Amino acid sequence: MEKEKLIRRLKIIEGQVRGLQEMIKNDKYCVDIITQSSAVKQGLSNVEDILLEHHLGHCVVKQMKGDESPKAVAEILKVYQLKRK
Amino acid sequence: MEKEKLIRRLKIIEGQVRGLQEMIKNDKYCVDIITQSSAVKQGLSNVEDILLEHHLGHCVVKQMKGDESPKAVAEILKVYQLKRK
Amino acid sequence: MEKEKLIRRLKIIEGQVRGLQEMIKNDKYCVDIITQSSAVKQGLSNVEDILLEHHLGHCVVKQMKGDESPKAVAEILKVYQLKRK
Amino acid sequence: MEKEKLIRRLKIIEGQVRGLQEMIKNDKYCVDIITQSSAVKQGLSNVEDILLEHHLGHCVVKQMKGDESPKAVAEILKVYQLKRK
Repeated sequence: MEKEKLIRRLKIIEGQVRGLQEMIKNDKYCVDIITQSSAVKQGLSNVEDILLEHHLGHCVVKQMKGDESPKAVAEILKVYQLKRK
Repeated sequence: MEKEKLIRRLKIIEGQVRGLQEMIKNDKYCVDIITQSSAVKQGLSNVEDILLEHHLGHCVVKQMKGDESPKAVAEILKVYQLKRK
Repeated sequence: MEKEKLIRRLKIIEGQVRGLQEMIKNDKYCVDIITQSSAVKQGLSNVEDILLEHHLGHCVVKQMKGDESPKAVAEILKVYQLKRK
Repeated sequence: MEKEKLIRRLKIIEGQVRGLQEMIKNDKYCVDIITQSSAVKQGLSNVEDILLEHHLGHCVVKQMKGDESPKAVAEILKVYQLKRK
């Protein structure tokens, strides 16, 4: 099930964040810690992609067929601009 | 008109790209050139935001009310992932 | 101490990642989950900024005064390109 | 020569920005215009990478061997944070 898959991915990400704490505790090389942190963010971005795909294919289609197009458009733009960060 | 506004913005961006060439020709400080190039990209991102808003509010609503939801979803995801670059 | 501060921040981020799992378990609205995930990535970016500042001010100065400039340059470029993701 | 190469690249980018204006004039499909704009930004990012590599390998090494480490560090951090945009 999709939900289970997302939760499993987030558990791995949670473990990676604990790993970052260990790296700092053990004075690992900064560049290696930053590289690992980037990998964690990439993992979160992948989760977001799955969520967005689900959102577009389900909620947004319903919203746009109904009377909620402006809300749907505003939310997609918001998510799109978050991406830039 | 929206189209005129976008073209005007792109003309400004075109002038800024010529400005970058001048900066390099005149051996300006690298950090200043990079800063200016970032501003140009920000200008392009603003143009993209306007285009996306138009796309969502017009084409996508039509696509989703019609029979083209999968195409609409795939294209929004593609644009969303471009954003990351 | 700087290390303590970073670990404290990462503990908060770890808690936020657990919060994301709860949101998915409880079928929260996709847009809210994506927004929260973006906040977590922003938190990680802030940690990276602190690490990079430390790296530049300590390791890189030493590397460049010594004989390791090419290594230092290559690593900063690598970190810079990770940023794009 | 490196300068010539950068100016040549920026001339291509300038032409691409003119191409974007044409696409808008001719009512091309929004998604295609956004995709092309992303390619232009990628081109600018490549120019920035070359500039940064030059900056790090020349100016920064000199600054750090001299007495300007704090200035050098602050500028690299600034460029790094621009990247996020």
